[in-house]
Amino acid sequence: MSAHKELTLRAHVSPGLAAKLAARRKQTGQSLSAIIVEAIERLLGEEDQTVFQTSTVNALMEGASTGDMTMTELKTHGDFGLGTFDGLDGEMIELDGKVYQVRSDGHAHPVEDSARTPFATASFFKANETAKLDRVYGEAEMLEAVGAMLPSRNIFHAVRIEGRFEYVKTRAVAKQEKSVGLEQAATQEPIFELRDVEGTIVGFFTPDYLRGVNVPGYHLHFITADRSAGGHVLDCRTADVTIKIHHTPEFELGTPGTEEFLKADLSRDNSAAIQKVER
Amino acid sequence: MSAHKELTLRAHVSPGLAAKLAARRKQTGQSLSAIIVEAIERLLGEEDQTVFQTSTVNALMEGASTGDMTMTELKTHGDFGLGTFDGLDGEMIELDGKVYQVRSDGHAHPVEDSARTPFATASFFKANETAKLDRVYGEAEMLEAVGAMLPSRNIFHAVRIEGRFEYVKTRAVAKQEKSVGLEQAATQEPIFELRDVEGTIVGFFTPDYLRGVNVPGYHLHFITADRSAGGHVLDCRTADVTIKIHHTPEFELGTPGTEEFLKADLSRDNSAAIQKVER
Repeated sequence: MSAHKELTLRAHVSPGLAAKLAARRKQTGQSLSAIIVEAIERLLGEEDQTVFQTSTVNALMEGASTGDMTMTELKTHGDFGLGTFDGLDGEMIELDGKVYQVRSDGHAHPVEDSARTPFATASFFKANETAKLDRVYGEAEMLEAVGAMLPSRNIFHAVRIEGRFEYVKTRAVAKQEKSVGLEQAATQEPIFELRDVEGTIVGFFTPDYLRGVNVPGYHLHFITADRSAGGHVLDCRTADVTIKIHHTPEFELGTPGTEEFLKADLSRDNSAAIQKVER
Repeated sequence: MSAHKELTLRAHVSPGLAAKLAARRKQTGQSLSAIIVEAIERLLGEEDQTVFQTSTVNALMEGASTGDMTMTELKTHGDFGLGTFDGLDGEMIELDGKVYQVRSDGHAHPVEDSARTPFATASFFKANETAKLDRVYGEAEMLEAVGAMLPSRNIFHAVRIEGRFEYVKTRAVAKQEKSVGLEQAATQEPIFELRDVEGTIVGFFTPDYLRGVNVPGYHLHFITADRSAGGHVLDCRTADVTIKIHHTPEFELGTPGTEEFLKADLSRDNSAAIQKVER
């Protein structure tokens, strides 16, 4: 403890937050310093370990596609992520803190902080494991190599695969009328084939027991190195890529406050349909 | 913003945390004050909205019952909760920040902060809705009254039911050898019947789409007002009780770092067995 620094911090605190701080001190008997250290440790420490998600894939299947969370808020939960936009308007890729949208024309473009998402998964990416694949791997073989890097299939992992690909096949859902579910939207989805392309796969591994909230197994999006194209990955073949895995034993699920989410029938088991739509 | 107070805070910060703070400032360009306010808001603000859980009921079913999280750590996630202890040793009730254990003899006693849990659900309880039941309700009727107070079945809710009960039937699992699953443990469980008793039901409502992580619907534990007895609620009849509901749209799942959790087969659908064990 003697090695601890004493920092003097000036912070502007709203009256509401000051009242909550006082209530917390009374409730727990903690000093103000202890609460601040707990708060900072929680913010910075948990971020290293957490995958955050707003809403569930199942809710998208049921047509709860109104954007609720802004990009500004999403970025407080991660600098790396995937998802979609208001009305299923394309595919989201967040990479190094910047958010891109791949619309149904296949083009990628940067997204305003005020844009809203009905569903996104994000984390502050840190590589715990790194491996190079310096020959051609098909998608199944590539995912086997990723699987060998996971210490457990019972926690979330963030997956970043970067480099040169021989082939990437993607789709990008077109913006839908309200309440059209993902399954119906995906029946008309445009498909794109990119060949000999540099770029990054942004993805997550979801444990099977969370099949109600995300695609069990791998959910992968792609964006080219020049940030001009990409989408939801349907197939790929690597040329020379590096796989980085971030182990994230904590999962934080935020639910939208929208009527359509709160009233949706989320008891249906859509896993078979989700597998069909997402693979 | 003019109404904001300026607080000068002294905090003892470890070198590791100071380095992380510096990295965050570099990454986001935030001031130290902004990071501290974000951290405190996150800590205090999210607590109001969050149900925290360590491990899953499914992992207990598969025999992952080694205690991992201490009560000290659990209390940072809530002052209200339920769960079990190392080796399925009885039923946990956390109420007003104090943790009690009901062992298989039916007696409740306070728990040391160093005790460990393999599975617990907790929140900082705040009542959003309150209702009185001043006549006799059977358990099904009582849960219908609770259900009418939930704005949505698609988010978690914490449920506190306090007062006089005509009847409460509970069970308390006995401590097991390692790797015995909850289903087998519950076959030999002692059952207790309490009549005309004051006490509190501590419970959670879990949305159906999270059936892989907790008991879908209601999961209720009970403790008497004199903190002498209780257990996992199997049946009850109210006399004069107050129901309080806390709406918690955020869910935070922490997973144990134990080998048995990381290696467990959590892909099995145990919902039918869980319903049988827990009701």
